[in-house]
Amino acid sequence: MSVQTPNVFEAMQDDLDLVRDRVAVAAHVDFPIVSELVEGIVQAGGKKLRPLLLLLAGRAFSYDRPRLVTAAAGVELLHTASLVHDDSIDRASIRRGQPTLNSRLSSGSVILIGDFLFAQSAILAAATESTRVVAIFANTLASICDGQLREMLGAHNLQQDRQEYLDRIFGKTASLFAGAAEMGAVLGGAAEPQIQQFRAFGKDLGMAFQIVDDVLDLREMSRDLGKPAGNDLRQGVVTLPTMIYVSRLEAGSPETDVLARVIAGEEESDDEILEVVLAIRRSGALDEASDIAHGYLDSARASLSVVEEPETREWLEELLDLAIRRSA
Amino acid sequence: MSVQTPNVFEAMQDDLDLVRDRVAVAAHVDFPIVSELVEGIVQAGGKKLRPLLLLLAGRAFSYDRPRLVTAAAGVELLHTASLVHDDSIDRASIRRGQPTLNSRLSSGSVILIGDFLFAQSAILAAATESTRVVAIFANTLASICDGQLREMLGAHNLQQDRQEYLDRIFGKTASLFAGAAEMGAVLGGAAEPQIQQFRAFGKDLGMAFQIVDDVLDLREMSRDLGKPAGNDLRQGVVTLPTMIYVSRLEAGSPETDVLARVIAGEEESDDEILEVVLAIRRSGALDEASDIAHGYLDSARASLSVVEEPETREWLEELLDLAIRRSA
Repeated sequence: MSVQTPNVFEAMQDDLDLVRDRVAVAAHVDFPIVSELVEGIVQAGGKKLRPLLLLLAGRAFSYDRPRLVTAAAGVELLHTASLVHDDSIDRASIRRGQPTLNSRLSSGSVILIGDFLFAQSAILAAATESTRVVAIFANTLASICDGQLREMLGAHNLQQDRQEYLDRIFGKTASLFAGAAEMGAVLGGAAEPQIQQFRAFGKDLGMAFQIVDDVLDLREMSRDLGKPAGNDLRQGVVTLPTMIYVSRLEAGSPETDVLARVIAGEEESDDEILEVVLAIRRSGALDEASDIAHGYLDSARASLSVVEEPETREWLEELLDLAIRRSA
Repeated sequence: MSVQTPNVFEAMQDDLDLVRDRVAVAAHVDFPIVSELVEGIVQAGGKKLRPLLLLLAGRAFSYDRPRLVTAAAGVELLHTASLVHDDSIDRASIRRGQPTLNSRLSSGSVILIGDFLFAQSAILAAATESTRVVAIFANTLASICDGQLREMLGAHNLQQDRQEYLDRIFGKTASLFAGAAEMGAVLGGAAEPQIQQFRAFGKDLGMAFQIVDDVLDLREMSRDLGKPAGNDLRQGVVTLPTMIYVSRLEAGSPETDVLARVIAGEEESDDEILEVVLAIRRSGALDEASDIAHGYLDSARASLSVVEEPETREWLEELLDLAIRRSA
């Protein structure tokens, strides 16, 4: 990409601002302390990759701004609601550089605030007046829960195959990228094969995004993702790099032994976790996992043949770069 | 009512069975232990008042069975999802005579299972292919969360006015009765004024239902509601009978003092709670609260003038009786 490439965020800034405003209005709660905390989480935002994907998927066909902005706000709010529950489950204390709700409120309040944000996101989906968008939306929420349940119930178990990992990250992460792209194409009035190709694009982008995230969790020791490195190991969650690392170890070796204890939650000292992190890095497993992520990106790029308008295609390609450049 | 009155549950049993089957399929999760527990909660069911109300509201106009059954299953599942989170928040151990999910699973799993059930209920709402039904559905979920948040954030505070109580029980309970009635009338093809009258009917029924529930919590010492008497006091929740009782006490009296300590959570011994329960009973506050519940029932009954078909009207009147006869 040349340096002259227009930045997709700059180009879409006005519409992203509209999305942000819709989210802020929808997330408003009528209780002083809670309201302030929820606004903090919402305003801190993330990279807004999901609403941007939805808007661009619509732009590839017919750009019905009001409905696309509404759906994009719904997607962003669904993501936020999911993070609120997720942080509560993980007992995380920092997210997006802000204190999490669960670090400031009772667990009961956090559950209800997450539910409230789910409800508001569903109201936005319904406001598109497309039953198909609502159906995609509801199915996406079900997939997210399924992926998170798989992660939780599969934790602390080193014996997992790669398909289980892929199913899990599809649910937890890629399903919302897939759903966002599909909703955008539906609202843009795309034909069915184009809608499916956009869905595939979103799914591949989301898979790459999550694998990169899992690599970053082991690659960076101190970084601005709002959670400590080796967090997955600490939670007993087996990710792709760890699976690759395990496949290279001999059964019964000291390395297998310490990893098994860390995953089982029997050993949680920072020193032991650091030891495992360093061993995974030395093994080359991070590069192999990154290669797999790049495979998904290549597949996503191939799906973009469906986009005839050159500017939108360029911006969607930028999104692919953003998915892997997050470490910078 | 004469003893010959056909029982509404018997008359509607076939359709309620269809609803139960739809709920069971939707609530199926792919994890052995979790699946068994969720099925237990779903099968135990409750009185199915909400799906029944939705079906009858449709029957008052044009009975489109497939869509009404789908929406009724969505309403029942939304209610179940809400109970799952509610039990987790209250740390309840028994519901519908079954162990609650949170008594058997980690709090994280329970949050995710509740979210999964919300998602499935939204999928059912979307399957009606009515954007209006979906919008009612999403707004109802928002109202439920709002009511529950108000209850939680307003707990442990004796200084509340009656309007706060009414807003709270509308959100927590009556909003779903109102939404169920509205969805049924919409799917039945009713005209707008009739839809609004049905919504008012559902709301009034729900208000009466919750007030009766709050009275029962103080009236019965040992009963089959799956929670101990005086539970609201123990949770610091101020309900209508307690408000009426307070209004009759002199400020600074010993009775006010012990009540204030119980509500504040400073005094949680069974003896002190029993003392307050007995004092509320002696004060006549339960009868006064029951009278208010009957006022809502009268208002609901008046709304039934909209129903021309005599059998359906009779069954809807039966629902009103069921709302207050639960103590039997």
